[in-house]
Amino acid sequence: MSEPAFQDFYPENVAHCYGCGRLNASGHRIQTRWEGEESVTRFQPRPEHMAIPGFVYGGLIASLVDCHGTGTAAAAMYRQEGRAMDSLPAYRFVTASLHVDYLRPTPLGGELEIRGRVKEIKGRRVVVEATVSAAGLTTARGEVVAVQMPDHFSQGS
Amino acid sequence: MSEPAFQDFYPENVAHCYGCGRLNASGHRIQTRWEGEESVTRFQPRPEHMAIPGFVYGGLIASLVDCHGTGTAAAAMYRQEGRAMDSLPAYRFVTASLHVDYLRPTPLGGELEIRGRVKEIKGRRVVVEATVSAAGLTTARGEVVAVQMPDHFSQGS
Repeated sequence: MSEPAFQDFYPENVAHCYGCGRLNASGHRIQTRWEGEESVTRFQPRPEHMAIPGFVYGGLIASLVDCHGTGTAAAAMYRQEGRAMDSLPAYRFVTASLHVDYLRPTPLGGELEIRGRVKEIKGRRVVVEATVSAAGLTTARGEVVAVQMPDHFSQGS
Repeated sequence: MSEPAFQDFYPENVAHCYGCGRLNASGHRIQTRWEGEESVTRFQPRPEHMAIPGFVYGGLIASLVDCHGTGTAAAAMYRQEGRAMDSLPAYRFVTASLHVDYLRPTPLGGELEIRGRVKEIKGRRVVVEATVSAAGLTTARGEVVAVQMPDHFSQGS
């Protein structure tokens, strides 16, 4: 049994995201965990997630970087406060901006690895840098500016 | 009958992208056309494309901006050369970088409209700016730096 992922702690009413919600049966349901100072997501694209035959489409890479970033932002806030992720209040982040540089084509077939680092935490705002790699080669770099979700989003208003 | 979309002219061996390939039965198959100086894509998200209930997930928005941008880049190159999109050589672009600013939550339910403008054409590189709107309100802004696909990609090597 692996330890729970960041996304396992998302409150039920905000755990439906197509990219990272554990309750979205159609979605990617990514799982992100700390490995030392880095956050790591491993994801197996499906055959139809192609750009051109043999390569992963850029929108999937953007989506993985995005949700990896918001998950890492939440985990970083708990860690900064010395709180367990199952303690309250729950943190959930949304994306203010997303940037992805596609360095080379990402081969389709094997597992992708997204590794993130917290670049900055300032108030309700966390900046996460990430790399995407396939077969050990970095194919994309991204940056996510994540902000804490406004309270009215998560209170089922 | 509406006129053909930019994506209808993609050569068959590079028309499988999950975001914009007309031959990807599982994908979004976006269609983009000129409306004056702007390129326009209209897209109906599916119910599962949610971020939190009621709103579109950011990865879909990123994917739409991305593929809208590469499609617009190709169309802009033909237009600059005064060539029809069914003339040869065929243009197909890939993304060098993608940036999206999420201005406000994008409501899920109605059609999204992505409108693009060509910011710059320089050699094999085209920069496209885009907005995403729902129900007439702009919810995201994006920029795509697209570069002409290297020849060896599209020759089925």
